[in-house]
Amino acid sequence: MAEQHSAVPVAPCDFVVFGGTGDLAVRKLLPALYLRDRDGQLPDATRIVAVSRAGLDDAGYRDKIRGELPRFVPAAELDDAVTARFLARLSHVSLDIDDPLGWPALADRLVDDEKVRVFYLAIAPGLFGSVSHRLAEHGLVTASSRLVLEKPIGHDLASAREVNDAVGSVFEEHQIFRIDHYLGKETVQNLLVTRFANTFLEPLWNASGIDHVQITASESLGVGSRGGYYDTSGALRDMVQNHLLQLLCLVAMEPPTYVDRETVRDEKLKVLQALRPITGPDVDRSVVAGQYGPGLVDGVAAASYQDDAERLGSTTETFVAIKAEVQNWRWAGVPFYLRTGKRMGRRCSEIVVQFKAVPHAMFPGSEGAQEPNRLVIRLQPEEGMRLLMTAKEPGPGGIRLRQVSLNLSYEETFQRRSPDAYERLLMDVVRGNTTLFMRRDEVEAAWAWVEPVLDRWSRPEHAPRPYPAGTSGPSAASTLIERDGRAWHE
Amino acid sequence: MAEQHSAVPVAPCDFVVFGGTGDLAVRKLLPALYLRDRDGQLPDATRIVAVSRAGLDDAGYRDKIRGELPRFVPAAELDDAVTARFLARLSHVSLDIDDPLGWPALADRLVDDEKVRVFYLAIAPGLFGSVSHRLAEHGLVTASSRLVLEKPIGHDLASAREVNDAVGSVFEEHQIFRIDHYLGKETVQNLLVTRFANTFLEPLWNASGIDHVQITASESLGVGSRGGYYDTSGALRDMVQNHLLQLLCLVAMEPPTYVDRETVRDEKLKVLQALRPITGPDVDRSVVAGQYGPGLVDGVAAASYQDDAERLGSTTETFVAIKAEVQNWRWAGVPFYLRTGKRMGRRCSEIVVQFKAVPHAMFPGSEGAQEPNRLVIRLQPEEGMRLLMTAKEPGPGGIRLRQVSLNLSYEETFQRRSPDAYERLLMDVVRGNTTLFMRRDEVEAAWAWVEPVLDRWSRPEHAPRPYPAGTSGPSAASTLIERDGRAWHE
Repeated sequence: MAEQHSAVPVAPCDFVVFGGTGDLAVRKLLPALYLRDRDGQLPDATRIVAVSRAGLDDAGYRDKIRGELPRFVPAAELDDAVTARFLARLSHVSLDIDDPLGWPALADRLVDDEKVRVFYLAIAPGLFGSVSHRLAEHGLVTASSRLVLEKPIGHDLASAREVNDAVGSVFEEHQIFRIDHYLGKETVQNLLVTRFANTFLEPLWNASGIDHVQITASESLGVGSRGGYYDTSGALRDMVQNHLLQLLCLVAMEPPTYVDRETVRDEKLKVLQALRPITGPDVDRSVVAGQYGPGLVDGVAAASYQDDAERLGSTTETFVAIKAEVQNWRWAGVPFYLRTGKRMGRRCSEIVVQFKAVPHAMFPGSEGAQEPNRLVIRLQPEEGMRLLMTAKEPGPGGIRLRQVSLNLSYEETFQRRSPDAYERLLMDVVRGNTTLFMRRDEVEAAWAWVEPVLDRWSRPEHAPRPYPAGTSGPSAASTLIERDGRAWHE
Repeated sequence: MAEQHSAVPVAPCDFVVFGGTGDLAVRKLLPALYLRDRDGQLPDATRIVAVSRAGLDDAGYRDKIRGELPRFVPAAELDDAVTARFLARLSHVSLDIDDPLGWPALADRLVDDEKVRVFYLAIAPGLFGSVSHRLAEHGLVTASSRLVLEKPIGHDLASAREVNDAVGSVFEEHQIFRIDHYLGKETVQNLLVTRFANTFLEPLWNASGIDHVQITASESLGVGSRGGYYDTSGALRDMVQNHLLQLLCLVAMEPPTYVDRETVRDEKLKVLQALRPITGPDVDRSVVAGQYGPGLVDGVAAASYQDDAERLGSTTETFVAIKAEVQNWRWAGVPFYLRTGKRMGRRCSEIVVQFKAVPHAMFPGSEGAQEPNRLVIRLQPEEGMRLLMTAKEPGPGGIRLRQVSLNLSYEETFQRRSPDAYERLLMDVVRGNTTLFMRRDEVEAAWAWVEPVLDRWSRPEHAPRPYPAGTSGPSAASTLIERDGRAWHE
């Protein structure tokens, strides 16, 4: 029943992937489309056109993808008949974006102007504007076209506006899908349902009921081969400006009138606009930058960031902790502690909503012994939700309190694979459902908030605090939260 | 750690069981004391004196209990060394309560007036007063004596007062322990902890957050060999006046200042006093009486109550459903539906707290599709707690809502046997902790509330509604709740 239900087909479309031989396409986009095909969600007329400079013909591209699919789709999900059907949808157009001579070949593949047309830009962000303009020049942008952009959208407010202006001069805002794959995760989706399809949380979901919120996205990996790019970005741009702020918005937003309309994005924007600005010397109090040095990760020696990135003397941060505040009626006085880092002790993305402590300890011997209630929403490695509560330890004698956990594990409860974020997001693109994508004003509001921090850090005296690889970040991050009488949830 | 903690020894005591060869002593009290001995909770000086008319000597009684223990203690909990130690604590005094000549033999066993002394009356309630008086006459009641009474305490308000007056003329109220074994269950204990050692429930726990409460105690068994007694009692006296009202009190009570003092009983009394009186013709609207007829239980033919009890033409109810209301600030307008019956479809005791429905359906297609949140506290057959909530069904495509359950199973979470209610309650008696026992004023307030119903049912035209054995009771019980737009949780 549910399986059938989930496979409601989307409209037929021409799905054009710029960067069709690149990492993102091969690892994420094509496997996601394959799985949606397997579930019957892609009508026969759906075509996937890969665009790259690889000089492949259709057969060559199909061969390549036939070889790659088993690396990124679990064996249990692979099926010969589906693979054949899926590969038949693929074609390849060899194209140098700046060479006008290549474009007619792409135009030849896009003949039905009524069909939904998706342009997925899995390419360097510096090309977003020029590709959009070429598409327009060659008459490829129809009313039913959508443009999909991957982060980063700019590297500060001004450059983000430039990108948004450039693509916005060709596409309407409702046609532009800025992907944040965090928003495609089941648990993030479920956060809205948990808050607004239940009545036991919302009355507590405010400064009266909640002590503080923690949002953590820690990785055990280092920068790997991305060092060149990463050194121009850093954790604040790479993680906080988009993913962490989006999660903060979903936790903090007011109930929208209806999900599936612009209202969700309206409410998220209001949260971003309500963030207390952190500027000037306040940056040094409210934000901690860190950079990993050599250390041990899972018992194996790990190099420093500067060695990984081959940028000796770099002051790029690989770790950020922020104490944020949402200045509105609901959240006044409730800190939102954000934290993200590379080369940390473990890979874990989670949201922890800590409720107020009990106002009065009425059980003998329980004074000071009770952990506060926490709702823990885990995004990875395994998606799930836990409500940490206090229960009575069974047994005769006095009432002894113990923390227990009410669990909702996605895999266990639903007995099925959780789809990858891209599977959902790509189908939403075809449907034209923008709810889970970042609107221009959100992206720019987020940049406006982080920019004073970037400015502060651009001063010559700025240096991120070192932390050994494999740890939970610099000690200043602990101090940030501990001086408020709180602690990171580990 | 926890296991050690749970075995904090109680004071040495002389534990006198009147009715020492009877069903309750053999099935419940001695096994419970054995298990507490096994866990090291009974000091060496603890002695158990069985009193009965059985004419046994100490050795004979020990032989009897040695034979009975394996029937009522799980084999895994039995240990030869502990059994030997436990049996050595036992002695037997043969005594006819009305024969003054027997009492000195009991007095001979109770030589230390400083030692805690427990008199457990596992005998007919009609004897509670006379045994108390004999104990006083023979100088056996010391300052550190406690009296334990099993239900029923009276069969109406006047007779309950008589019993309370009789025992109260010998024992102080703080020495009198009226047992309600429901209050010894782990989940019932945990109800207080869940409410008052957590902060995520109490803000909702009132007429704003809760739609209604259901308290069900259904049995699949019939009256069995208890028919003679049961026919003079009925479900209202046997279950509602004590167990169900006690559960209602724990759900509805205000937070006490401290658990382990008189304050819990003070708060329960306030709830009983706040119950809306149900009198006269209102009884016919707010209360349903039922009596089981022949039917099928687990596929096996079952006789009617009148056949089981050998009381043709009896109007004794084996089923009661009540719509109760607590008239105070917290609970105004929130019905408490109580239901208990014999020979029902399944054995199940549970408390269901149903929260208000969501005020606004914001997910596409979710209008009317959402189940309200419910907290389900199960007392038997398996103790546990579940929070029923709405989550997103995983999968790409629209947001589909589904009810899921956050579970706390006692056995699974704590990985150990839940102790029997008597184990806890008997240790509380030795400790002198009255929190989990019914105080005189509670018992009498409960009688005062049910008495107008009994009065109404004593009219000649009263007849309980028949229901087939193995069903969920008479249809009038469904009507009682359905006319409010609600339904029993099955």
